[in-house]
Amino acid sequence: MTSSETSGELLVCGRPVEGFLEEIEAFHGWKAPGLVLGGFMLDWAMELIGPDVEADAIVETCHCLPDAVQIFTPCTIGNGWLKVFDWDKFALSLYDRRKLTGHRVWFDLSKARSVPNLHNWYMRLVPKKELSLEVLLESILDARRSVLSSRTIKVTRFYERKKKGVIEICSGCGEAYPAVQGLQCLTCQGEGYYDASE
Amino acid sequence: MTSSETSGELLVCGRPVEGFLEEIEAFHGWKAPGLVLGGFMLDWAMELIGPDVEADAIVETCHCLPDAVQIFTPCTIGNGWLKVFDWDKFALSLYDRRKLTGHRVWFDLSKARSVPNLHNWYMRLVPKKELSLEVLLESILDARRSVLSSRTIKVTRFYERKKKGVIEICSGCGEAYPAVQGLQCLTCQGEGYYDASE
Repeated sequence: MTSSETSGELLVCGRPVEGFLEEIEAFHGWKAPGLVLGGFMLDWAMELIGPDVEADAIVETCHCLPDAVQIFTPCTIGNGWLKVFDWDKFALSLYDRRKLTGHRVWFDLSKARSVPNLHNWYMRLVPKKELSLEVLLESILDARRSVLSSRTIKVTRFYERKKKGVIEICSGCGEAYPAVQGLQCLTCQGEGYYDASE
Repeated sequence: MTSSETSGELLVCGRPVEGFLEEIEAFHGWKAPGLVLGGFMLDWAMELIGPDVEADAIVETCHCLPDAVQIFTPCTIGNGWLKVFDWDKFALSLYDRRKLTGHRVWFDLSKARSVPNLHNWYMRLVPKKELSLEVLLESILDARRSVLSSRTIKVTRFYERKKKGVIEICSGCGEAYPAVQGLQCLTCQGEGYYDASE
């Protein structure tokens, strides 16, 4: 259950552990345990799909995992190569964007039971105060892939890139919006998130 | 209509233009015009809100803009400080996460009419072949804030951080999932995106 090693040094997503953790902190703001665990998931998925495949990514939660993909692969939200499903499952997939075949890696609870710190953290069975970040990170770095599972998949839905449809100019705000939203943009229909103030 | 300048050098999001463009390419894969334009939008929003406010971000499209925020601010999808609405409006907001006051900046079509390359590109009035990336980027770098507008806002909805609810173990796949999804996880209910293959 090891990740890639070169001359004995552990590499995660192609980086020595220290660099891997530093990049996480620089992008995400702190060494979030979900993101460190996610890095090991991604490391495995990247190894399975190999370096020569142009891969798109799907993550099944908004929490932490999207950042692992965005830090360590070319896939981002803004370039459309990463899709984020708000399903709160701790799983990610990399797949060949033409053949639609790929690999899903997930946090496997049945395996995690043998690493109580990780199991208890994920299932929120102990108060945060009783499990320090330092101890939790050490458990993740020790466990590596031993708490993960993977399987080969064929992507059957949601693989299309988001296309822009017909654009109209909103009669309410004068901004461009997708015609499919109706006679005015969603915000002018009262579905927006702000009040304009002075 | 200038961005910040220090001793005569144009700074965008605190970087000299070359560095600004290099960071965009490193993260996003190429100097996408929407992302360069988005950088100027963000630059203005950051200036308006000031350096001392802990700001959350909202972007109103999946295309390009989320990456501007993720590259140049501490807000990311995975840490929950950035929310992405799939509304296809070219606008972003930074707001004080406690007071909920902030600034929205948008691409202003009425102003953009005086920069035909930008207007025609955004409204897709000319085929991509007739407007090279180089020319388009030059137009964006010349136009800066002259094609943008901003206004002060009070955020009224969608400002809550996503919370994890009650977790159950799915009787179908054995993975953890949010109880709110029903008796099994969405994937085991047939709403997933993949077939498992051998």
